[in-house]
Amino acid sequence: MTDRLYVTYEYFGTGPQEVADFIRVEQSIEFPFDLAPTWIQNEVVGKIESITEIGEGLHQICISYLAGNTGGELPQLLNVLWGNVSLVPNVRLVDVVLPESITRSFKGPRFGIQGLRKHFGASERPLLTTALKPMGSSSETLAEMARTLALAGFDLIKDDHSLANQPWSKWRERVEMVSRAVNEANDVTGKQCAYAPSLNLPFDQLHEAARMAKSLGAGSLLVLPGITGFDSMRTLSEDDSIGLPIQAHPALLGSYVSSPKNGISHGILFGLLARLAGADITIFPNTGGRFSFTPEQCEEIREKAQRPLDEIKPIWVAPAGGMTLEKIPEMLKAYGKDCALLIGGALSRGDLASNASAMVRAVEA
Amino acid sequence: MTDRLYVTYEYFGTGPQEVADFIRVEQSIEFPFDLAPTWIQNEVVGKIESITEIGEGLHQICISYLAGNTGGELPQLLNVLWGNVSLVPNVRLVDVVLPESITRSFKGPRFGIQGLRKHFGASERPLLTTALKPMGSSSETLAEMARTLALAGFDLIKDDHSLANQPWSKWRERVEMVSRAVNEANDVTGKQCAYAPSLNLPFDQLHEAARMAKSLGAGSLLVLPGITGFDSMRTLSEDDSIGLPIQAHPALLGSYVSSPKNGISHGILFGLLARLAGADITIFPNTGGRFSFTPEQCEEIREKAQRPLDEIKPIWVAPAGGMTLEKIPEMLKAYGKDCALLIGGALSRGDLASNASAMVRAVEA
Repeated sequence: MTDRLYVTYEYFGTGPQEVADFIRVEQSIEFPFDLAPTWIQNEVVGKIESITEIGEGLHQICISYLAGNTGGELPQLLNVLWGNVSLVPNVRLVDVVLPESITRSFKGPRFGIQGLRKHFGASERPLLTTALKPMGSSSETLAEMARTLALAGFDLIKDDHSLANQPWSKWRERVEMVSRAVNEANDVTGKQCAYAPSLNLPFDQLHEAARMAKSLGAGSLLVLPGITGFDSMRTLSEDDSIGLPIQAHPALLGSYVSSPKNGISHGILFGLLARLAGADITIFPNTGGRFSFTPEQCEEIREKAQRPLDEIKPIWVAPAGGMTLEKIPEMLKAYGKDCALLIGGALSRGDLASNASAMVRAVEA
Repeated sequence: MTDRLYVTYEYFGTGPQEVADFIRVEQSIEFPFDLAPTWIQNEVVGKIESITEIGEGLHQICISYLAGNTGGELPQLLNVLWGNVSLVPNVRLVDVVLPESITRSFKGPRFGIQGLRKHFGASERPLLTTALKPMGSSSETLAEMARTLALAGFDLIKDDHSLANQPWSKWRERVEMVSRAVNEANDVTGKQCAYAPSLNLPFDQLHEAARMAKSLGAGSLLVLPGITGFDSMRTLSEDDSIGLPIQAHPALLGSYVSSPKNGISHGILFGLLARLAGADITIFPNTGGRFSFTPEQCEEIREKAQRPLDEIKPIWVAPAGGMTLEKIPEMLKAYGKDCALLIGGALSRGDLASNASAMVRAVEA
């Protein structure tokens, strides 16, 4: 009866009824409606729940689908939500309400907000995170950079998302050297700074690399679901032999949000889907940085990342992209304390150690 | 010296020089340019090769990157081409020229055009392909449908891309029953009709499922790179213990092409990238079907899928989406004979067996 998911699309154009009829068939049976058996027409094809005009030539179309259409699996859930309709211009996926039968199929983030507060001994404050850059640096250089940042008191230090297996710093060597430097710094500080190597690696190496990273002393993982797939992140998150906090990076996902009349809303993509797929921290470009998200789009991400969702834990937001020390008060005002402050390149302007300490002091204050 | 990849973006707006400078840094070091060591500025950061005005407020920006920036791996190649710049509005990726050092890193499609001509005994003609639908049908029903289609003489019969593990037809049961029906039909016809189960499955089951499909008698695979990742397709294609022809389905990829000022060009996405990632057949919505690709966009896909690319084989194009028997002559005129004719739901209007035979006769004529 209520075992359905409710999916809301915005449609820009004329004939919303025809478009709604198209979507409910395309996203389920993808077959001429009149040729389908009656029970399939009634049960398996999506149902139009409402069509509401919300602006000139702009309608919200809500369609519900039987939970069974997803088979309880994330790849097919993505397909039901957006598979073929992604190919239709002027339609945007803007909201998704999942039944408990679906949320129960997912473990969701392993740590979430409370889990990482405990993990990093950060009972009240935001998390302090940064990245190792630039590409071209040797593993030794990146390891010393990581040591400095860990000594300054950062919680999380990730690889720049584009560090992979470049000739200047191979993945395994980097993970080994940086993990060691960070753990040596932890011995000094008594803190739990975690290094997150980037897992933008070949499909068939992903889980093995994650386990190796853990065995080499890495304390977290950076995953790029736009490249390796949302379900790669889910399996990395759910794998008890790994069990590390996961940060999701938005690489390649921009095309889903860069056109206002197409794609997937910021909240659904970086909030709901990242969370359902097991990210403990969702990284996205903050408003006012190098990219172009609006304050409302960022708030939508925060809301979808943190609002109640059955047993699925709320997660940290990490607004990033050209952030500076000066912007910290503004970021805390916008996002509250359940925010992972991610400042990268700006820390290297001047002396890294003093900038890093200044950031830690600013947040602790 | 020439070991660089050349990437062309279209930019809609003012200040193309600033945008070009932004992209070349963002897609490489993602770090303040002035703070990077000189050799990294000179070598690792992308170089602006040209900025050309091609329309009012529209520029083509060509940037080259050192091949080493990709580490010779597909996930990082995607990241170099489109990772963070995907988040910048009004920029579109329109061309990619790869050096041999990169194309050599990929095996490309296992069969390609000539391989499948030999495989299916189709020395001159287009391939005949179709899909099992609608969702909600039992495995028995789908198997009988497949038997009819195989007896009629189809080369390839794929799962509808949205068939996964729904309650009405579980994946393993379906693969077993449909494979058996198709192989029994092959015993009658003496042909090599291949069933392609959809591999839109959980990340950690993909390779095992592909091997199981093969052992159950499936002769091909349907992969959804927009959901499971382009590199999942590459590894499935390169895995010698699988060794089956691969069809790539465009689910979820539409958001990369649906906005004219954002995303990735049709040719790069469905032509070059699908091919590099090992698809033998690239499925996309034909012009004039249920979707909205233009004839020029479809031709661009064909061109990128089939033009010479070092040792990487050319592949079949499968223009689909609401295609009918009547459109076959037009499709052959547009795409030539290296085309996999994919007709789905329309075959079920009236008698499936007669429609299927009519299609086979039409193509053989």
